[in-house]
Amino acid sequence: MRLTVRLVDIAARGILLHHNDAKSLGVLAGDRIVISSPVTGKATVDYVETTGTLIDQGRIGVYHHTNEQLTLTENEVVEVRVADRPVSLDYIKKKMEGEKLTREDIRAIVADIVQDTLSPSEITAFVVSSYINQLDMDEIESLTRAMVETGDQLSFHAGPIVDKHSIGGVPGNKISLIVVPIIAASGLLIPKTSSRAITGAGGTADLMEVLAPVEFSASEVQEMTIKTGGVIVWGGATNIAPADDKIIIQEYPFKIDQIGQMIASVMAKKFAVGADVVAIDIPVGKYCKVHTIEEGKKLARQFIDLGERLNMRVECALTYGDAPVGRAIGPKLEIKEALSVLEGSDSPRSLIQKSCVIAGIALELAGKANRGEGANLALEILRSGKALKKFLDIIAVQGGTPDVSSEKITVGEHFYTVRADSTGYVIDLNNHSLITIARTAGAPADHGAGLYLHAKHGTSLSKGDPIFTIYADRKWRLEKAIEEARRLRPVMVEGMLIDRVPNVREWVPGRSRNLE
Amino acid sequence: MRLTVRLVDIAARGILLHHNDAKSLGVLAGDRIVISSPVTGKATVDYVETTGTLIDQGRIGVYHHTNEQLTLTENEVVEVRVADRPVSLDYIKKKMEGEKLTREDIRAIVADIVQDTLSPSEITAFVVSSYINQLDMDEIESLTRAMVETGDQLSFHAGPIVDKHSIGGVPGNKISLIVVPIIAASGLLIPKTSSRAITGAGGTADLMEVLAPVEFSASEVQEMTIKTGGVIVWGGATNIAPADDKIIIQEYPFKIDQIGQMIASVMAKKFAVGADVVAIDIPVGKYCKVHTIEEGKKLARQFIDLGERLNMRVECALTYGDAPVGRAIGPKLEIKEALSVLEGSDSPRSLIQKSCVIAGIALELAGKANRGEGANLALEILRSGKALKKFLDIIAVQGGTPDVSSEKITVGEHFYTVRADSTGYVIDLNNHSLITIARTAGAPADHGAGLYLHAKHGTSLSKGDPIFTIYADRKWRLEKAIEEARRLRPVMVEGMLIDRVPNVREWVPGRSRNLE
Repeated sequence: MRLTVRLVDIAARGILLHHNDAKSLGVLAGDRIVISSPVTGKATVDYVETTGTLIDQGRIGVYHHTNEQLTLTENEVVEVRVADRPVSLDYIKKKMEGEKLTREDIRAIVADIVQDTLSPSEITAFVVSSYINQLDMDEIESLTRAMVETGDQLSFHAGPIVDKHSIGGVPGNKISLIVVPIIAASGLLIPKTSSRAITGAGGTADLMEVLAPVEFSASEVQEMTIKTGGVIVWGGATNIAPADDKIIIQEYPFKIDQIGQMIASVMAKKFAVGADVVAIDIPVGKYCKVHTIEEGKKLARQFIDLGERLNMRVECALTYGDAPVGRAIGPKLEIKEALSVLEGSDSPRSLIQKSCVIAGIALELAGKANRGEGANLALEILRSGKALKKFLDIIAVQGGTPDVSSEKITVGEHFYTVRADSTGYVIDLNNHSLITIARTAGAPADHGAGLYLHAKHGTSLSKGDPIFTIYADRKWRLEKAIEEARRLRPVMVEGMLIDRVPNVREWVPGRSRNLE
Repeated sequence: MRLTVRLVDIAARGILLHHNDAKSLGVLAGDRIVISSPVTGKATVDYVETTGTLIDQGRIGVYHHTNEQLTLTENEVVEVRVADRPVSLDYIKKKMEGEKLTREDIRAIVADIVQDTLSPSEITAFVVSSYINQLDMDEIESLTRAMVETGDQLSFHAGPIVDKHSIGGVPGNKISLIVVPIIAASGLLIPKTSSRAITGAGGTADLMEVLAPVEFSASEVQEMTIKTGGVIVWGGATNIAPADDKIIIQEYPFKIDQIGQMIASVMAKKFAVGADVVAIDIPVGKYCKVHTIEEGKKLARQFIDLGERLNMRVECALTYGDAPVGRAIGPKLEIKEALSVLEGSDSPRSLIQKSCVIAGIALELAGKANRGEGANLALEILRSGKALKKFLDIIAVQGGTPDVSSEKITVGEHFYTVRADSTGYVIDLNNHSLITIARTAGAPADHGAGLYLHAKHGTSLSKGDPIFTIYADRKWRLEKAIEEARRLRPVMVEGMLIDRVPNVREWVPGRSRNLE
């Protein structure tokens, strides 16, 4: 069928047909058609939406993102036909039926996700099917490889390449801002791609963006890493494992944490940047993705197993996840806290301790420190000021202004301190509520917004003592956040490292002890 | 947040925000926001799409169907806030986890489907979850009741009310055009809602639409039924069990036939029109939804069980499904064939036989005929000419021209006859291929398009004898269909009724025999 183009000013993919043309073509809303231009020879597949009024019969509405591929002009005539049904739908159906998917099946599904051949609903069907009929390790490996193959990859001549990952869910987890500079200062390469907050008060990429641009192509990430030893960029801009974001967005309404997909997602990014060694931080706690140490150990073994299949050395630390890391939550508050640690502050202890444990694992895996000595080496690099210098270099290479210090960071001008209404010890803390308050105050979009905790676990409070302060860039946001805060009783517990897999250790600054 | 309206000329529901406003509001693409107008006080919930270019910061793009509810004007200022997460998502998650849903859970899900509170992806998650973790009979009953309660219902003072349903998949299944007039002519009421073809060459509503309008409200259906005894309308226009279409559309890409949802879908429509007795036609065959007699019996028992829970008397006929019913496939061809039977033709036998068996079941259930005598009574009504008269009345009451006859129906002007290229008996027939050819020829959108079969099972063909003729309204469509037809070897088997549940019988015109 030949139809006349009408360009539609909508920032999405899509095709709009008149009901009668759709019927004549034999397609329903949601079906796929192939549109091809006899002028340019370009063709693409896209979904049909139908209308009885907005497009005349004989016309085809082409949305903005679809036309980015086709570069059609208004009133051009295009050829339209029904697209073949993607074979990947059969593989998704296969998973629905409880069968095991082959590497080729999964590659087809992932390729169709990346190319927008599958609709959001169809991706949801894949997500739900592999949530109910869990992926086994062969399928997880296939998914990981497929995610890597369908995106850009880095390749370094020198090695070993280091990477780290923290499973999300713990507020204030700004440790990458300290771990990456420590690793880079040790002479290793760490091309760190981070995420933005989806449900949190700020992902590492949201924090870093306060100081420098974070959107780069894979090849820019590679060049900057070679130059400086490390970067902290937003993974979403790199086209590294691009299928991942499209899968995660479908999990979001249901708060699905499909373990297999999560492992594949993490490891695909590590594999794609060429990592040889990977330190993984698995927070354990009642508000975390992992609720018990047993679950944490099982997850750690899966990461390690998959690492072996992909020829990466992986070690995991089970960390305490029921309390925020450090005292600050929200972009500028966290940046300020991380900078103060890099500048030599000896508090907050939980932040220093956790950063050095994770950096230490990587240093040991990469051969920079003996077993059990990595965290001490990390602390040494931190205290030497080399990590601070490296962090400023990273800011500079990414195009930010390296003239920063914790003192110069100004947080939200509107603030309010919540105080104890009775005397006693802090005994519980709801991470979800803290995040909600910080988000209500404007984090992460309002950089100055967030929370600062004055009291942590073990703190004895008298009536009237400050518990936490809410910061906001906008007054009405502060008021909303105060309302939210009236429902909250904060509690905090110190000591971050519960367990480490494959080794069980405990570490405190200045002391080395291996409990194996 | 307050934003200025920009009306967007797109025939869909949706809201377009600038990235920065979305971030500031704390929503991602796909999240729900509440938009309310301080001018009119109207409010609605809708999904967000985001853009960096097409909408300025501070503006909100409102799509056409969303604005049908809000009636905003260009440049009006609206209030926008994050919508609460629908609690039905938790119930869908519950089904994902393999738990049983309560009546209240299912009611919440169905209500949110009907009100467009759930996105297509979220509906898919429900479909896939209840496909993998099959609904039990309690859940099927809850789903049926919820579908009924969230739509319009009919209520008649007289009774019994009759309904019939054929499980789809068999081409040429125009029996409703004969069954409905027979039942109405017997003095019973049959408010028949039918579907349009999704993957077939024509649903009953597509056929009837050639003769009369088929889009009516539930109350119009009720009035017309009281007046004439029966109607044949499109269910999609009535707002009877409106959740059903929204569920089915999500099953379509995967060709999911979720048995529980299918049973609920059929029975909800029967329950909503106030049916007391229901005859269900279950075609069994290799190209049908039901492949074996055992499966068919199991399905029949589920229909009967659900009927008992809803206080409807249900009886099912397992029918032969490997061949088309009659010889005609495609709107006008089928109308012509059905009219000729109503006018007194004694062929095609398969069509007469099947129509009388299904009508006979209904007549028996409604007490118009003794057990085992229903089909004979149906045939009597058919041969008396009363059914023809009633059919013309139905056309008239729906606003069509009752001045029709099989002779006056003109089929596609372009046609081509496929002939036997060797001598022998017809031994197999691929229904899927027949449908594909009919659709390629233009059915159901082109009313004159379709197929007419000259040979059925047992037919001995000499080389050069006609097997079937393809009809089309447009020449290029005919050519495409001929191409498709070159791949087909047609085969046909006669005798439609395999089995009947709860009774096993065999029936041939003019003879009554009960094999119980």
